[in-house]
Amino acid sequence: MDKRKTYLVVGLGLLGGKYALELSRAGYRVLGINRSQSNLDWALEQGYVAEGKTRDFADLIGQADHIVFGLYPTALIRWMEEWGSYIRPGCIATDVSGVKTGLVDKVQALMPPGSEFIASHPMAGKEVSGVQNAAKVDFSSANFIITPTPANTPGAIVWITELAHELGFARITTLTPAQHDRMIGYVSQLCHAIAVSLMCASDNADLAQYTGDSFRDLTRIAKINAEMWAELFLWNRENLSAQIDQFSAALQQMKGYLEAEDREGLEEMFRLSTQRRSAFDLK
Amino acid sequence: MDKRKTYLVVGLGLLGGKYALELSRAGYRVLGINRSQSNLDWALEQGYVAEGKTRDFADLIGQADHIVFGLYPTALIRWMEEWGSYIRPGCIATDVSGVKTGLVDKVQALMPPGSEFIASHPMAGKEVSGVQNAAKVDFSSANFIITPTPANTPGAIVWITELAHELGFARITTLTPAQHDRMIGYVSQLCHAIAVSLMCASDNADLAQYTGDSFRDLTRIAKINAEMWAELFLWNRENLSAQIDQFSAALQQMKGYLEAEDREGLEEMFRLSTQRRSAFDLK
Repeated sequence: MDKRKTYLVVGLGLLGGKYALELSRAGYRVLGINRSQSNLDWALEQGYVAEGKTRDFADLIGQADHIVFGLYPTALIRWMEEWGSYIRPGCIATDVSGVKTGLVDKVQALMPPGSEFIASHPMAGKEVSGVQNAAKVDFSSANFIITPTPANTPGAIVWITELAHELGFARITTLTPAQHDRMIGYVSQLCHAIAVSLMCASDNADLAQYTGDSFRDLTRIAKINAEMWAELFLWNRENLSAQIDQFSAALQQMKGYLEAEDREGLEEMFRLSTQRRSAFDLK
Repeated sequence: MDKRKTYLVVGLGLLGGKYALELSRAGYRVLGINRSQSNLDWALEQGYVAEGKTRDFADLIGQADHIVFGLYPTALIRWMEEWGSYIRPGCIATDVSGVKTGLVDKVQALMPPGSEFIASHPMAGKEVSGVQNAAKVDFSSANFIITPTPANTPGAIVWITELAHELGFARITTLTPAQHDRMIGYVSQLCHAIAVSLMCASDNADLAQYTGDSFRDLTRIAKINAEMWAELFLWNRENLSAQIDQFSAALQQMKGYLEAEDREGLEEMFRLSTQRRSAFDLK
């Protein structure tokens, strides 16, 4: 990686902030664009970014060899529509978004000639948000997914792979946008849908004193950034809706066994579940 | 607690084994009854029990001032039908079972005159089973629930409370059998039903490399002792079935918002969930 390159981070939230922090630490010049002045000021004070602005971005954008978009999908498209034309030829950009289908194509179409957008997803979210929590994000145990399209060049794929190494990710893999969205629907969004539904199903605050590890583990992720997750759910609603149906069918099968007092049917589900879950522990 | 009392543990599994270990450590004379000779031998070698048998229990039962039943509900009733008449007057017994309705009354009816059964539930199960894992069980962070009925005497309630203190439980509370089963259906069995259904819904072993904390936390309890959980689910099937319905209704509501692209509806569920889950953290 060429340390003389200038990075621009657009959106200094939890993940954008973490990229800014790590890139500054690694010796790059890092510029920042953010909606709120107070969070930008904080990032400047902490040295996460060398310069930053909350409006009139043309000069900052024009300096960027690389851009990292730390924005929600809808905001990313809106930003590109307004500011994309200022991106300079040769610039290679990426994002941190948790959904890809319908987003990557649109952003690529908005990049000016000679510049390139290669999408990626650092799977390192936390229950907390905001640049003030960025330093708590741990990339060293996290997956980094690159989701190239036919529009991407080998050079951009090399760059994003080197960036992921530089940031210290545990595993770097490549998926198509569609594969990514099916995967993330299952391993992340469906889990959040279940945890949230369990908390919403009934107000059992009086049972808090009895909850052990099972309930706490299952609902830990029910504390959720409402705005971001509504955005992710809606962008991936077809995959997620199908996965909710698949899960609901299994739960209804279990309920059927319960009501029929079918001990063997229940035990068969428990054995299948135990066997499959063990396979997950090995990887 | 009177250290001259003799305890009999019937069923040296994970919890029965832990009671035997702690009571022996505390200086009581502890006898053991177990189905398998090899696990009994192990418990004898480790000093968890001073004496034990796998059949012809009359003399051991006749020596017991207190009995702890570490059996599944169905096995407990069968054992009482066969051996209950050997229990001596003055003996006070308890169990470790995770369901109470339909069990406690039956066991109480099978106790000979002058003896007494006071039901309780140490909420300290683990994903592992067997006496060899008993030492790993941690009572110091666990709830102990006493579920008395009108048949119980104040003396038996004092004894079980003192026993729970002696064993080092974090919190000791009292519920009716019906309250207990509604509570345990929600905080434990429903969580296991959800985790197992998620693993059974589809064979996504190829996604193991992408799973982060959300998925792993949600499915940790999907590794399950099939025989024991089928038993617990069936004993509590009315509560559990109703709770599955309640949960499914919330999940279907979320799916409805998704399909209607109702961002406000989703965000409202996320906010409710976040608020309720935060209350659980405080307790």
